[in-house]
Amino acid sequence: MKESLDYIYKEQKEVSLYGGIAALLGWDQMTYMPPKGSEERADQLSLISRLAHERVTSETLYTQLKKLDDVGNTLTKKDRLVVTKLLRDVEKARKLPAEFVEKMTKTTSIAYGIWQEAREKNKFSLFQPYLEKIVELEKQYYDYIKLPGHPYNTLLDDYEEGMTVDVLQKEFTSLRQQLVELLQNITSSTTYQRQRPITFKLDSKHQKELCDILLEQMNLPFDRARLDISTHPFTTSMGDDDVRFTTNYERGGFQSSFFSTAHEAGHALYELGILKGEYKDTVISDAPSLGIHESQSRFWENMIARSKPFWNYFTPIFQKIAPDECKTMNTETWYRSVNQVRPTLIRTEADELTYCLHVILRFELELELIEEKITVAELPECWNQKVTDFLGITPKNDREGVLQDMHWSGGEFGYFPTYAIGTIYASQLFRQFLKEHQTAQDEISKGEFATILQWLSEHIYQYGSLMTADEIIKKTCGEGLNSKVFVGYLKEKYYPLYGV
Amino acid sequence: MKESLDYIYKEQKEVSLYGGIAALLGWDQMTYMPPKGSEERADQLSLISRLAHERVTSETLYTQLKKLDDVGNTLTKKDRLVVTKLLRDVEKARKLPAEFVEKMTKTTSIAYGIWQEAREKNKFSLFQPYLEKIVELEKQYYDYIKLPGHPYNTLLDDYEEGMTVDVLQKEFTSLRQQLVELLQNITSSTTYQRQRPITFKLDSKHQKELCDILLEQMNLPFDRARLDISTHPFTTSMGDDDVRFTTNYERGGFQSSFFSTAHEAGHALYELGILKGEYKDTVISDAPSLGIHESQSRFWENMIARSKPFWNYFTPIFQKIAPDECKTMNTETWYRSVNQVRPTLIRTEADELTYCLHVILRFELELELIEEKITVAELPECWNQKVTDFLGITPKNDREGVLQDMHWSGGEFGYFPTYAIGTIYASQLFRQFLKEHQTAQDEISKGEFATILQWLSEHIYQYGSLMTADEIIKKTCGEGLNSKVFVGYLKEKYYPLYGV
Repeated sequence: MKESLDYIYKEQKEVSLYGGIAALLGWDQMTYMPPKGSEERADQLSLISRLAHERVTSETLYTQLKKLDDVGNTLTKKDRLVVTKLLRDVEKARKLPAEFVEKMTKTTSIAYGIWQEAREKNKFSLFQPYLEKIVELEKQYYDYIKLPGHPYNTLLDDYEEGMTVDVLQKEFTSLRQQLVELLQNITSSTTYQRQRPITFKLDSKHQKELCDILLEQMNLPFDRARLDISTHPFTTSMGDDDVRFTTNYERGGFQSSFFSTAHEAGHALYELGILKGEYKDTVISDAPSLGIHESQSRFWENMIARSKPFWNYFTPIFQKIAPDECKTMNTETWYRSVNQVRPTLIRTEADELTYCLHVILRFELELELIEEKITVAELPECWNQKVTDFLGITPKNDREGVLQDMHWSGGEFGYFPTYAIGTIYASQLFRQFLKEHQTAQDEISKGEFATILQWLSEHIYQYGSLMTADEIIKKTCGEGLNSKVFVGYLKEKYYPLYGV
Repeated sequence: MKESLDYIYKEQKEVSLYGGIAALLGWDQMTYMPPKGSEERADQLSLISRLAHERVTSETLYTQLKKLDDVGNTLTKKDRLVVTKLLRDVEKARKLPAEFVEKMTKTTSIAYGIWQEAREKNKFSLFQPYLEKIVELEKQYYDYIKLPGHPYNTLLDDYEEGMTVDVLQKEFTSLRQQLVELLQNITSSTTYQRQRPITFKLDSKHQKELCDILLEQMNLPFDRARLDISTHPFTTSMGDDDVRFTTNYERGGFQSSFFSTAHEAGHALYELGILKGEYKDTVISDAPSLGIHESQSRFWENMIARSKPFWNYFTPIFQKIAPDECKTMNTETWYRSVNQVRPTLIRTEADELTYCLHVILRFELELELIEEKITVAELPECWNQKVTDFLGITPKNDREGVLQDMHWSGGEFGYFPTYAIGTIYASQLFRQFLKEHQTAQDEISKGEFATILQWLSEHIYQYGSLMTADEIIKKTCGEGLNSKVFVGYLKEKYYPLYGV
């Protein structure tokens, strides 16, 4: 048994090394790689992915795990947890032929380059054949794995273990209706109608300075992390002590870079703080779901960085960094300006209130593609129709429509919903945090985030995958996913802002 | 036979992917990786190195190669070349146990971090135990491989196939004596004694602008390459269309960054231009030796960028980029200033004339370590003694002595000599080039480098490893390594500069 345990821990360590290598290959592709490197990079990623898959699906690992699972009651709690979770992953992975995994990796790696080109040229037809291939591969994926219920459950499970279409459809349909209603109430207010677009501009250098200050306040350990620039901001881990996150100072101006940075830094802090110790290099040291991961980024981006106390602290800092640009701004105008509701076509530029509508739209389209109710060719049109229905505005072209996100080029069907799940979780966590720390708002007003970090560490980071996402939220907040809490949070924040 | 050939080409492709992945892991370690990532990075590098070694040494590959080698006369010229070279590599690699390779990779990866720390803290004792381990590993390496003759031949062979201690000792001893004599003649000249240290300073931004102009003139294809910053400049390839090279604007000021950039760009152009076509992803598409590689960097750095015609073109550009700093400079003063002879303690800051003395010093010390004539503990003292003998100056501390180069931390014994070999080759190539292109100097004066690039491509790049280094030089220049050509070149350039 000792030997079997040693074996499975050694294998986990090695698979985690593959993960780190793949993360670097992916990070470099999105940050520094010369454009013509993409073909060979696809081969490299595909090789690593195949090797990792071979390890995870190896006969020996499976046999050892089964042997250990059979004597589960004689194992320590730690070993039992590791064996159970790893066996689930292994059994799932063993259903996928190596050639399929390699094909998926290679296809998506090439599709990413094509998507970039299609977006740049505003030409969906370039991307369409690749997306068709990817949708086919997603269906094949379901055929291999076949979890119970709706085929989409199988896709969801990779990102949000245990989540189902039934739950999401119910939750998202209700949330969509409430958000559309909320949005209507706000857009019909006098304040909204008098509201002018934000014209505040800040050059890259000042944006960077402000992001650096924010990250310093958030206590990001830069001997274990770094911030770079990419088209679409993201966070990834090369190892326990090497977490990379990105932002973009050129794309959307100050709001985009500042809140992206807060967002990705939330992910990075989670990665850096997540349970290690005796669970280092095991499957327990990973996040239990992307929803939980996203709750960490949304928490910092919205609940903290878009709060009034936060702007009590940051207003003078902005004033100091960019006195000319900020001379007419005070705490109140800053608070209003970073919380301006204004339906937009681009998900990543969406305000806090309409953001989930973008996500629900993508969820619904993914579902319809998988259910074969629509084709990839029809996607741009269906996209535009939904945007119009939900937000009352219509994309003029595919760059500001269906081509805006990279996720589908990566074959990440089932990923988008986790953005909304995380957003809802974040509101639940925030409510709980404020209940437990009534003076927290004062600390935020002073730019002190230690209590928050401590609380998140205790209630999220330290659990790793010792529990599922649902269990963690239930333990911390007393109930599972509840979009009503999110709607309540939004009403409490936005109705006063718009005098509703 | 078809199957065997397919197999060996597939394996070469995969080994070349491992090479690219390892290159990225290494490049990132030296450019962007957060410091605490180094331990996990060592594990990742070690894993990839083990996997590549497993592929190269696999029984199947060896069997297939032997089979093909046995019917060598029935193979096409291309297949025969590939089989012969690959079999040589495979037979060598198969002598090394996988554990040894892994140990070497891991030790050197950790030693790199320690070396950095030791250099920063100016404390050789930190690095000493790691270097002792590495020297032991080098000896073990010899025991495994055991090429004929001196043990150091075996170390040399990895970098300069076919080169021997006998040849180098003879060539380097003579070169050392002549360089010391040349240096004495120059330092006793009136011009030298009146010469003042260069005080020219340029901020990083201007340095970068000038390097960018240089690279544009050199026609670096930045869709297939990129320039970054690292402590010690280097060039590496992630793939045929992804070559990375680095410079450093902070370390040594303008001269350091400008000539480093020219140097590394020379390496990069070679990597980017080297024989591909039907030889893509085969061992023939690699450089035949580091000496040849270094000849390409030295050619651009010294023969071109330190030539008078070059400064005819670049003087007005400098004037334009940094008018204040350059106002007292003209072509003649620029030419003199970038060719100032001044013995220095740091190899990478050495002038063209004294540079090879630094290399010969390291070669002699490596030899003495391998022959156990000195110990690692004695290294700093022996180093300082040789510097004094060769250059007439003495390091005040180990940072400007034995700790200055990273190579030993990487276990790269046998590497240093290739710097001098390359320098000599470069002078031979330059002489031949000028013979064939009498108007070349005029073109350089106009910043036109197309003829040079074309010539290097025809006489070096396009051969890949179709021939050995020695064969390429003989074919192009009519004779093999000849340090007299280098000494002649130096006399012709430096005696007039110093009125000797």
